[in-house]
Amino acid sequence: MVKINENYLKLPGSYLFSTIAKKIAAYQEANPDKAEDMIRLGIGDVTLPIAPAIVEAIHKAADDMGRAETFHGYAPDMGYAFLRETIAQRDYKDRGCRIEADEIFVSDGSKSDCGNIQEIFSHDNRIAVCDPVYPVYVDSNVMAGRTGEYDTEAGIWSNVIYMPCTADNCFVPELPKETPDLIYLCIPNNPTGTTLTRKQLKVWVDYANRVGAVILYDGAYEAYISEEDVPHSIYEIEGARTCAIEFRSFSKKAGFTGVRLGFTVVPKDLKCGNVMLHALWARRHGTKFNGAPYIEQRAAEAVYSQEGHKQVMEQVAYYKKNTRVIYDGLKEAGYTVFGGVNSPYVWLKTDDGMNSWEFFDYLLENARVVGTPGSGFGPSGEGYFRLTGFGTYENTVKAVMRMKALKRKK
Amino acid sequence: MVKINENYLKLPGSYLFSTIAKKIAAYQEANPDKAEDMIRLGIGDVTLPIAPAIVEAIHKAADDMGRAETFHGYAPDMGYAFLRETIAQRDYKDRGCRIEADEIFVSDGSKSDCGNIQEIFSHDNRIAVCDPVYPVYVDSNVMAGRTGEYDTEAGIWSNVIYMPCTADNCFVPELPKETPDLIYLCIPNNPTGTTLTRKQLKVWVDYANRVGAVILYDGAYEAYISEEDVPHSIYEIEGARTCAIEFRSFSKKAGFTGVRLGFTVVPKDLKCGNVMLHALWARRHGTKFNGAPYIEQRAAEAVYSQEGHKQVMEQVAYYKKNTRVIYDGLKEAGYTVFGGVNSPYVWLKTDDGMNSWEFFDYLLENARVVGTPGSGFGPSGEGYFRLTGFGTYENTVKAVMRMKALKRKK
Repeated sequence: MVKINENYLKLPGSYLFSTIAKKIAAYQEANPDKAEDMIRLGIGDVTLPIAPAIVEAIHKAADDMGRAETFHGYAPDMGYAFLRETIAQRDYKDRGCRIEADEIFVSDGSKSDCGNIQEIFSHDNRIAVCDPVYPVYVDSNVMAGRTGEYDTEAGIWSNVIYMPCTADNCFVPELPKETPDLIYLCIPNNPTGTTLTRKQLKVWVDYANRVGAVILYDGAYEAYISEEDVPHSIYEIEGARTCAIEFRSFSKKAGFTGVRLGFTVVPKDLKCGNVMLHALWARRHGTKFNGAPYIEQRAAEAVYSQEGHKQVMEQVAYYKKNTRVIYDGLKEAGYTVFGGVNSPYVWLKTDDGMNSWEFFDYLLENARVVGTPGSGFGPSGEGYFRLTGFGTYENTVKAVMRMKALKRKK
Repeated sequence: MVKINENYLKLPGSYLFSTIAKKIAAYQEANPDKAEDMIRLGIGDVTLPIAPAIVEAIHKAADDMGRAETFHGYAPDMGYAFLRETIAQRDYKDRGCRIEADEIFVSDGSKSDCGNIQEIFSHDNRIAVCDPVYPVYVDSNVMAGRTGEYDTEAGIWSNVIYMPCTADNCFVPELPKETPDLIYLCIPNNPTGTTLTRKQLKVWVDYANRVGAVILYDGAYEAYISEEDVPHSIYEIEGARTCAIEFRSFSKKAGFTGVRLGFTVVPKDLKCGNVMLHALWARRHGTKFNGAPYIEQRAAEAVYSQEGHKQVMEQVAYYKKNTRVIYDGLKEAGYTVFGGVNSPYVWLKTDDGMNSWEFFDYLLENARVVGTPGSGFGPSGEGYFRLTGFGTYENTVKAVMRMKALKRKK
């Protein structure tokens, strides 16, 4: 008689963004006249179309696929050399990081990789996560049975090491008292929009090497880094090759949320005993994945072309401007705001001690602005709220005006 | 201290097709003059370019992505309704199967789904596989720790139920003596190219319902079915909605090996106790996957358009003709051949009692023809060899002539 993976049943409720989508749908149904006027700064989805140089590359790749001489069937498991070599050069060597093309695994996106990476580790490894953080790290470990029991009241798992990142510690996680085996770091952080300097990240690299932990470093928001002392890759830090796996995404850099492409770096120096994690991930990639689409790999390549790079960085600048509008506008209105500088996310304290979901409803009802409740990202996110710079400029300005007006009404 | 998933180390050697690729590379290096002349009928990759109607759909989708009004960001986890509804109608309802659009999960390909599906089941479930069969079913369960220990000599896992499919039983698996929880059926079968009739499949559906097992039905080669009494979907069989998950692919039907798109059907009637497997797979999809690319979903939609359908079925006919050339030619030459009728694969007995890898080397050396050793698909594949109809017609004819000549020389 078949039995299910009971760990799935431990997952509380549904995935954060599904819940938000349901709430929005309910509001729209109840208020059809206001539905049009709603501004969504919640889910971290982009709004600008794919840049012209990339669309051109997709057209070219489509033509390649339509001709026998240039048709591409199964791609190499790890991705095409043309893309891996470009990534190695531009994202790593040009920044002084010693990462080779054969340490890069191209995939259909960073969410898949962040969710799947835990598979190559033992079931009894203990994970540490920043709190709050992107829910996939914990959820994928819940599914694998690593997280113990869920305390519904506190919103925490008994076997997860939480590293609170709040205004109290300026959103810099402290080294945990209990020793983790796997440390998830999302830098710049989703949802707080805050980040770590080179010096602060060095502390983590040294710690991981010392205790024999692996850092799972999610750099999905790398393109938004503005400040000089914030590293773009963990491999800028001495010692990272022996303790860190890095996940990177084109979603927020080039608007690839619907294109789907990302990559993961597993340095060959990263070992557990005498086993290279690179070999394990290669085996996973080769057994349960069949390569990223040729068309999307060509699209990603175009992100690095002269024109493509210029165009995507203009898009990033546009979203950063929006983020600035939110940050400055809300600050001026008297909200307590964080993040925003090296990230498309602004993290704010809710009003009047409302909890995060109360504030979600309050904003939706009174300003028709949709954001993301901080508590959806972990217990220390309670009392916070996330807004993103991914809307249109016009809507962003409008949303901020409404939130200012709301503050004044009080 | 981090620990790895030790199950990965149990996997013997590397993935079948990587080994073949290495052998080919070695041969080419040793025989640079003959490299040009090599004919590859080994790996099941297609060779015809993507059909014009599909290329056109990709161009249109690329343009959609390049304009703000038609840009598509994150796709729905399960896939766009336009595609799921088309699939439900054309692949199921039109064949009399009661499958709804919301029972269809679009993904980046069937290999991912076949590899990932085991996650939603308990670790102590026991799997049964046809022997020989596509290696991903067993390998993904090895990684999850379900397969026990490997007997290198016999090439079998202690905790896997093997269902031999050989000439002795006309490649029809018998109901196993020990009761499995999960039954993998690849029909038409890869690698043997053989299949089950409706009546034969009904035996399995009834059995699964009786013992409470789930059938994981891989229908990747459905488009190649020629015979009337062979079902195109397991849901043509009464009772399948309560015991079967079906995997489908566009790879062999529409040449999508490098485009990447597939789907999985989980009927809502399929339950374990009171838990719908549909809900578990939805959760997996939502947590560790971020939707298939918009462009590829539009490409798949075009497979069902009037023009697209006509064009892809012409490609299928081309490959079937090749398969026929192999089957008839080798039979005429005195080889013992199977499959080929409802499948792009011909399964043949090796010559002179050679084992499968010996025959691989023999064919490569003496005919410059690359095939796939049957033993790579399981112990009962030993002494067999797989050739595919996916080459060009010209090369296929040439390969068969060489193999005929080889037979005559003896």
